[in-house]
Amino acid sequence: MGAGKSTIGAEVAKLLGRPFVDLDREIEARTGASVAQIFEERGESGFRALEAEVAAEELGHAALSVLALGGGAVETEAVRQALTDRAATVLLEVEPDAAWERSRGKKRPLARDEASFRSLYERRQPLYAQVAGGRARDADGVVLAAGGVVVEPGAFSRLAEVVEGPAELVSDARVLELHPPSLALQTPPHVLRSGEEAKTIETVARLWRELRLDRGGTLVALGGGCVTDAAGFAAATYLRGIDWVAVPTTLVGQVDAAIGGKTAVNLPEGKNLVGAFHWPASTVIDPELLATLPAEQRLEGMAEVVKTGLLAGEQLWELPDAELVRRSAAFKTALCLRDPYDRGLRQTLNLGHTFAHALEAGAEYETITHGRAVALGLLAALRLSGRPTDAVEETLAPEPARVDRERAWQALKRDKKSTGGELRVVLLGDEGGYAASAPEADVRRALGELIAD
Amino acid sequence: MGAGKSTIGAEVAKLLGRPFVDLDREIEARTGASVAQIFEERGESGFRALEAEVAAEELGHAALSVLALGGGAVETEAVRQALTDRAATVLLEVEPDAAWERSRGKKRPLARDEASFRSLYERRQPLYAQVAGGRARDADGVVLAAGGVVVEPGAFSRLAEVVEGPAELVSDARVLELHPPSLALQTPPHVLRSGEEAKTIETVARLWRELRLDRGGTLVALGGGCVTDAAGFAAATYLRGIDWVAVPTTLVGQVDAAIGGKTAVNLPEGKNLVGAFHWPASTVIDPELLATLPAEQRLEGMAEVVKTGLLAGEQLWELPDAELVRRSAAFKTALCLRDPYDRGLRQTLNLGHTFAHALEAGAEYETITHGRAVALGLLAALRLSGRPTDAVEETLAPEPARVDRERAWQALKRDKKSTGGELRVVLLGDEGGYAASAPEADVRRALGELIAD
Repeated sequence: MGAGKSTIGAEVAKLLGRPFVDLDREIEARTGASVAQIFEERGESGFRALEAEVAAEELGHAALSVLALGGGAVETEAVRQALTDRAATVLLEVEPDAAWERSRGKKRPLARDEASFRSLYERRQPLYAQVAGGRARDADGVVLAAGGVVVEPGAFSRLAEVVEGPAELVSDARVLELHPPSLALQTPPHVLRSGEEAKTIETVARLWRELRLDRGGTLVALGGGCVTDAAGFAAATYLRGIDWVAVPTTLVGQVDAAIGGKTAVNLPEGKNLVGAFHWPASTVIDPELLATLPAEQRLEGMAEVVKTGLLAGEQLWELPDAELVRRSAAFKTALCLRDPYDRGLRQTLNLGHTFAHALEAGAEYETITHGRAVALGLLAALRLSGRPTDAVEETLAPEPARVDRERAWQALKRDKKSTGGELRVVLLGDEGGYAASAPEADVRRALGELIAD
Repeated sequence: MGAGKSTIGAEVAKLLGRPFVDLDREIEARTGASVAQIFEERGESGFRALEAEVAAEELGHAALSVLALGGGAVETEAVRQALTDRAATVLLEVEPDAAWERSRGKKRPLARDEASFRSLYERRQPLYAQVAGGRARDADGVVLAAGGVVVEPGAFSRLAEVVEGPAELVSDARVLELHPPSLALQTPPHVLRSGEEAKTIETVARLWRELRLDRGGTLVALGGGCVTDAAGFAAATYLRGIDWVAVPTTLVGQVDAAIGGKTAVNLPEGKNLVGAFHWPASTVIDPELLATLPAEQRLEGMAEVVKTGLLAGEQLWELPDAELVRRSAAFKTALCLRDPYDRGLRQTLNLGHTFAHALEAGAEYETITHGRAVALGLLAALRLSGRPTDAVEETLAPEPARVDRERAWQALKRDKKSTGGELRVVLLGDEGGYAASAPEADVRRALGELIAD
């Protein structure tokens, strides 16, 4: 009560692209009476019975929606059961003082005097703990909790609270040295080579053979995007899939790579050609780990933060680290929850990436990093969209790439098959990213502008 | 109309362990009037509006059920849409003569004279074709169609009708020689080594590198259980998962291995340790392909047929090939649809397999085939269940195995961790298979009886 469920619930529904149902309003609409009136006429037990009935119906739909439940709904056993069985349930946290201030004098039947309001608050806490899979204080927090993503300074030191049961760890030597995790493990850590060299068939083949977990075990992946991609794929396929926990240690990982369940390794024929969709049981993001991140690695991640900010229509790149990570992670989590198998909407996350991949191929993956390529790719996407490029220029200061112009163009054309002289690219509009067709000549010109002579 | 939807629908619901809803009866229960009365009072359009409303509600539940719809429901656009979006829709086929004989004189408002009945039948055929993902004539047929499984003599020659769009083929040399498929392919077939040698990491690594399909492509796996297991896993992981079509050519494959979406390869550390759940877009089973199957291979499959018959409580092993395959495939399909991720019920399919795996390990996978081991394992499971063993003895005539007794027992204990001196095994009861705890000494004795001195 007084936690802001109606306002925040509506924001969550917008982020997730689902209808919003406020259970109290729904009950009022159906009965034609206010909650206060129903309490008066039927007593609390009469209201609870009605509430349980409407909740069961709303939670029984095949179509997904965001449902806000009043704080007392959990007092009914059937509602608790339905919340456990049928919903990702997130508790909106509020301090009792704040809740009382917001609820008093608002005709709420159970907020008439402070003493009983506070005793109610205390009594319900264990019930909330029983049904809630996560806790939050705002819409981004609800989305993160629904996706099993924890973003919190210091979260890394509490990793053992998240990883339940038998576990093994995959990481790389540098990360293990900087951030030794305090976790009880079944075996010594599996140490991968760093960077893209971790994302090979040989790596996952080694993991498959080394793992000793049974189906109930958890694989913890600690490291950058390459470690989480490879270990996540091993978890997706070992014993036909076991739980995994992603613990990203780089900015790229924390705002992008470790979120959303895409796992993959590379083939000599191309990147990410082998993989699986396998959502982590939890993703634990501790922005404090970024303190040890080298500046050039940070810039890699900032390219994705700027991309996310452009898509979200907010200057996320100007926020302090903890907030920048939290907001970016929430944006990506929402998109991935809306489109977990990458069938449409999620592709808007590729803003700038068509050009980036072309530049990387043009450089034969040698002389340009992914982040620098994305920064340049964003310039091209913004120009094609007819939008200002100053955010990219000021934050990422990309220099034209010294890559083979023709090879880059051929890679782009191979990647995005031309139809009737048009290529599909992600552009930016007032409402965010969208896939669109652009004339081949325009795309080629935009690519060309990114390349130094 | 007159196709038997109420009777067959109830049988399907039993097979799938779901509630059965007959839409006409539901409408009658809600209105307190018979369908004939509703037609009289509100006209056909009034009935259709009511029908669409109740259908939308029934199809909108998150909980799965088997829903029987009257033949005219598809005349409403909204119902067709809901059937396409929300259900696996199967058309119950019936000849117009039979339908008329069953429907006439039964107070069915649209079956009053034969000429208009027949014209109705003709008019609705294209609507059925539009919404139905499959066709069937009995409960097993509905289950198979719902699982995308086609069992039909001659189905192999019509493979091209099932495989849509760009495709590549995986098979082995012997099968390709016996059964060259008539399919337009993007590349020459990918030829695997035969038997378990196909189920290696090296095989799938080769497939990953050789495949040229994009996300919209289909991988066709033609062969025994080893080919479908390995190719299915490649399809599950190539580009994070593409469609695949399983075309089993052995009896084991047709009644067991190719059904239910389990794919896997072996590691030196053990069988099936790496894999994925990836349900085939279609499973095409042509019992005529069994004509070329060597007798010993056939016996391998019969062990699974006997197991299936014991679980189903029917002497499936006495049926002619086409029917034996169809019934066995339907039984497995139903169990797998009920428990696609192997979280409980599906484990009853392991009847006898705990002992079989122990015998195979005792023989170091050399001197005993899987089918012979299963035949013996069934004996042990039946004895532990206190049930007659004659079906196994008469059909499979298993001889005691010459394997290392201690090695077999240690393998069984490693496989099924003992809890309080008890081991979990699948037993057979009057209602089918069930997982149960058995005293370690009894299990050891039952295993011992399978082994020759």
